[in-house]
Amino acid sequence: MIYYLLQLLDRYCDLPQLFFYISFRAALATILSLLITVTFGGKIIELIRQKQIGETVRDLGLPGQNEKSGTPTMGGLIILSGIILPTLLVANLSNVYVWMLLIVSVWLGGLGFMDDYIKVFRKNKEGLKGKYKIVGQIGAGIFVASLMYYHPDIKVRDVKQIFIYASQDGKIIDGYNPVSVMNSKQERIVKDSLANGLIYSHNTKKLATNIPFVKGNNFYYDTLFHNLRIPGYLHIIPLAFIIIFIITAVSNGANITDGIDGLAAGTSGIVGMTLLVLSYVAGNYIFANYLNVLFLPNIAEVTIFLSAFVASCIGFLWWNSYPAQIFMGDTGSLALGGIIATVAIIIRKELMIPVICGVFLVENLSVIIQVTYFKWTKKRFGEGRRIFLMSPLHHHFQQKKIHENKIVFRFLIVAMFLAVLSIITLKVR
Amino acid sequence: MIYYLLQLLDRYCDLPQLFFYISFRAALATILSLLITVTFGGKIIELIRQKQIGETVRDLGLPGQNEKSGTPTMGGLIILSGIILPTLLVANLSNVYVWMLLIVSVWLGGLGFMDDYIKVFRKNKEGLKGKYKIVGQIGAGIFVASLMYYHPDIKVRDVKQIFIYASQDGKIIDGYNPVSVMNSKQERIVKDSLANGLIYSHNTKKLATNIPFVKGNNFYYDTLFHNLRIPGYLHIIPLAFIIIFIITAVSNGANITDGIDGLAAGTSGIVGMTLLVLSYVAGNYIFANYLNVLFLPNIAEVTIFLSAFVASCIGFLWWNSYPAQIFMGDTGSLALGGIIATVAIIIRKELMIPVICGVFLVENLSVIIQVTYFKWTKKRFGEGRRIFLMSPLHHHFQQKKIHENKIVFRFLIVAMFLAVLSIITLKVR
Repeated sequence: MIYYLLQLLDRYCDLPQLFFYISFRAALATILSLLITVTFGGKIIELIRQKQIGETVRDLGLPGQNEKSGTPTMGGLIILSGIILPTLLVANLSNVYVWMLLIVSVWLGGLGFMDDYIKVFRKNKEGLKGKYKIVGQIGAGIFVASLMYYHPDIKVRDVKQIFIYASQDGKIIDGYNPVSVMNSKQERIVKDSLANGLIYSHNTKKLATNIPFVKGNNFYYDTLFHNLRIPGYLHIIPLAFIIIFIITAVSNGANITDGIDGLAAGTSGIVGMTLLVLSYVAGNYIFANYLNVLFLPNIAEVTIFLSAFVASCIGFLWWNSYPAQIFMGDTGSLALGGIIATVAIIIRKELMIPVICGVFLVENLSVIIQVTYFKWTKKRFGEGRRIFLMSPLHHHFQQKKIHENKIVFRFLIVAMFLAVLSIITLKVR
Repeated sequence: MIYYLLQLLDRYCDLPQLFFYISFRAALATILSLLITVTFGGKIIELIRQKQIGETVRDLGLPGQNEKSGTPTMGGLIILSGIILPTLLVANLSNVYVWMLLIVSVWLGGLGFMDDYIKVFRKNKEGLKGKYKIVGQIGAGIFVASLMYYHPDIKVRDVKQIFIYASQDGKIIDGYNPVSVMNSKQERIVKDSLANGLIYSHNTKKLATNIPFVKGNNFYYDTLFHNLRIPGYLHIIPLAFIIIFIITAVSNGANITDGIDGLAAGTSGIVGMTLLVLSYVAGNYIFANYLNVLFLPNIAEVTIFLSAFVASCIGFLWWNSYPAQIFMGDTGSLALGGIIATVAIIIRKELMIPVICGVFLVENLSVIIQVTYFKWTKKRFGEGRRIFLMSPLHHHFQQKKIHENKIVFRFLIVAMFLAVLSIITLKVR
């Protein structure tokens, strides 16, 4: 909103341009978000604590678990305020990516809040019924997919090298791509007038994405769907399936990771920082070319949203780090996972999620492996066997008597390692 | 060393240039450093544990303190290997800043090691005698000051806007700075040939530094010393005093901050990241102009050293986070503080240390305030009074029954806040 006011003012008087810089507003969003989560976090906790007697912690027989009973949940509300308020204040709200992310945050945060609300106030341990939760996530997926497919501002920049040809008397003949159209006379002219070579680019609505190790780092869904003989007007359907799968998977990953103090918030913060770097690069023409990723017009504004996101996760740790005074609940984990998935999709890095969100993936896999193996051995040997002492993975290490807090630090260090790895892979071809 | 080998190879065959990029080598240094500290950290701890029975923790009557007795110290050895080995492998060792930082690391790390060694093996709680410690720090300061003053590769780039003037028939008259020398005829020509304006820059050996809020963000020690009527050939002396003061103060700050698990390593990691951003900016001509800081030729290579530094601090937390399996000891804290001070000096940001290293400063101040007030009240009222329940500040919060780990997280969040603040201030003029 400050952005609008200043933009309006700028028409009438000569304002310093500082505020309109992405970098400055990103820093401002960071500072605001930290101030909000740290300053008001305590008050929100007090408010939640008065309303509820705290989520009853399931008895898993883990060390130090009893201390946790009585800790209030729904801390996701702190995270959401740290994301939404600074974005509303300093971002350009007419940017499609910004309002899309705000809607996704409120949508999935609201879904998680309903879940938490039913658990805490209706004393129903099941929470929101599974089918409602899935319908909510599918809805968010369809929303994102439709915008990605139909919205005119969501484009990628296609870059072509074009030469302006001139005949010997200096008259410009035409602009051609020298590789595609060329005859002997023109070829000579190209050599003569190479100095006239131009990089010509235009924004185009392609379902393109980045993938490491592939030439040009580009992958086109259009081409894939076309090869699968899906008619053009139906491309939205497989796209929606892919996006729904990604949003559901990452949300679920964040949800499972949210088991010990500070783990989900810390991991999300590091993932957010990685996405912040990648979105800044994708929004900067020079950097995008240097790192060989797609240049995306309008995407730079996402950097501001992500700055608030990262700062909000970090600020939440003020209260959530071991020993936690509040848990984020589904309000937090569903929103965090959904936002991460959506950002990865809009900055066209969704195929790198397995690396960027490696911690979520491993936590998710540990549960799947444990359950599958247990069922299979039960069928095969008559008794269920386990691979991990307990799943998800962080409980396995707790059972091995490693302190909860040390597990968090180590998972975060692994997350940082993956962050560096995912940025560097783009440079390696 | 890999850098040299590849440089040598590159003369004979056409190597991919990837390895020569600063960004790629910085990422490589990060990954190597994390691998070294995490993989070999456990072995180093085992080795140290076998040699010593652990530093006897002073009884301060703090909660959870007894658990700490028996924890080995000298963990700084892990940090130092994580800094030095990757730098030796991937950095350009002929770069003056790189070898200067390596020598400072070994020097101050060695000084701290002697202190730890005497404490642990000679069972002498005092450690290295104060005067030897100070002589060591002064030595490091004189070393850095001499290089800053005398080494020909340590320069700043001076940027001037120069116009090439041409007479009406197109003949170039001369290049002048239009502000300083200008007569009526030339003035007209300037307007005519503004398109011929050139940015002319040359590297110069000035004792320049950056300071926020000042026009151009620049401050010249030369000018200050000159105004103080110090003859030019003696400028090295006040410079050395300033540098010795900075190195000693920051080392001491890191030393005092190193009181609870993960605090000094975490803070140093965040400070390192700030310096990493600032050194990358100072080494990039476009960014340096954009952020209005001095462009420093050859400084980009420092980014690689700092990547190893940051990763090493983070990797050390694998072992040092609460509950700590090892302490860094003076081996770590003196080296970390010294390196931070030296980097701040060489990237000309030493006047911003109070903000960048705000946590160190506050910890240091809390001790000074506590001691001074205690002495003053003793003199005044006959009994010593205290402002903090205990100093340094982190113990004050421990006395207030805030869990050690939560204090660490909160101090780190404050450090991140200061990091964003110190980067943003450069943009504000």
